[in-house]
Amino acid sequence: MSRFRVGALLFEGFEMLDLYGPLEMYGMHPDIFTIIPVAQSMAPVRASNGPCTLPEASFEDQGLSYDILLVPGGDGTRREENNPALLTWLAEAGAQAQVITSVCTGSGLLARAGLLDGHAATTNKLGFDEVARLGPETTWQRSARWVVSGNRITSSGVSAGIDMTLAVIEQLAGKEIADEAALWAEYTRQHDADADPFAVR
Amino acid sequence: MSRFRVGALLFEGFEMLDLYGPLEMYGMHPDIFTIIPVAQSMAPVRASNGPCTLPEASFEDQGLSYDILLVPGGDGTRREENNPALLTWLAEAGAQAQVITSVCTGSGLLARAGLLDGHAATTNKLGFDEVARLGPETTWQRSARWVVSGNRITSSGVSAGIDMTLAVIEQLAGKEIADEAALWAEYTRQHDADADPFAVR
Repeated sequence: MSRFRVGALLFEGFEMLDLYGPLEMYGMHPDIFTIIPVAQSMAPVRASNGPCTLPEASFEDQGLSYDILLVPGGDGTRREENNPALLTWLAEAGAQAQVITSVCTGSGLLARAGLLDGHAATTNKLGFDEVARLGPETTWQRSARWVVSGNRITSSGVSAGIDMTLAVIEQLAGKEIADEAALWAEYTRQHDADADPFAVR
Repeated sequence: MSRFRVGALLFEGFEMLDLYGPLEMYGMHPDIFTIIPVAQSMAPVRASNGPCTLPEASFEDQGLSYDILLVPGGDGTRREENNPALLTWLAEAGAQAQVITSVCTGSGLLARAGLLDGHAATTNKLGFDEVARLGPETTWQRSARWVVSGNRITSSGVSAGIDMTLAVIEQLAGKEIADEAALWAEYTRQHDADADPFAVR
């Protein structure tokens, strides 16, 4: 079985479940997925209203590439959407990645890095328009648990990242592997990307 | 509104979502809940197949008490169930806490600390018996999303911690506050503690 390197982006004020929901699912299959938390520097990174996570790679690690990018949302995106270092890293890492994913307002960062130009995408449903304006060249979906557009896969708010990640795992490693991760987490999957009880009316 | 200190126990090999699912929900209301990650020492603590989280308190901090204890499960419980320092701290912190909660195999640690003697409890449904034998004085429930027994609230595997935490938030701060946290996370709550699609047959 092939092995995928998951680059999990950290920045001050990331939303805890945006990051750790997906990482839980990847982490269920360490023989297939290797998780690498990456940040601008190697300093601890504080989550929004939560603890600090330690990066294990930084934007300076030029030799590293990631098969899967995971970009969480959170309060901190409001600062990072104007951080050239982060946006440059994201554009470069995205160009090398097999799959580019985001959760919640993380899609605003992908948009600002130019990675959603010409693509369909979604984001969290509270403050939808605020994120959507960051991607004028993006077709924003107001009703979607997650959206697949080529290799750009964006999910709705917070917990939606778990369903999206299980879909990504299914795509890359097969349905059995994805269903195992969900079962081990006693998680009832939403298989339908279009089923969105939180859609913007 | 009163303020609750959430002591979130960290140990090597904790399960990511066991910890961060509940913390996401508490973190939605920082005016009500203050999160304090606590470990045996102040060294970074690595999750099972995941990144390191930084403690902000240790077992040495005698002056600290916690209104809510959150005990995650994970591979690391197999070591910690024989760690006298952790079990002693847990028994002492539990005696002072208003609510004692666990996720997944974390209930095995509560049992070993004597906190589930005479109580009903549940745990993850894969490896159920292995955990249940840690608490011979406990009435283990094979079918439950979570179990409330006095101020001991134990949840089933991994993702069940989110539903349990929303029930705890509802109990302590009201339904509106709990529903807000779920809405902001675009999370469809399981309100029924007895609804368990993963029950041990």
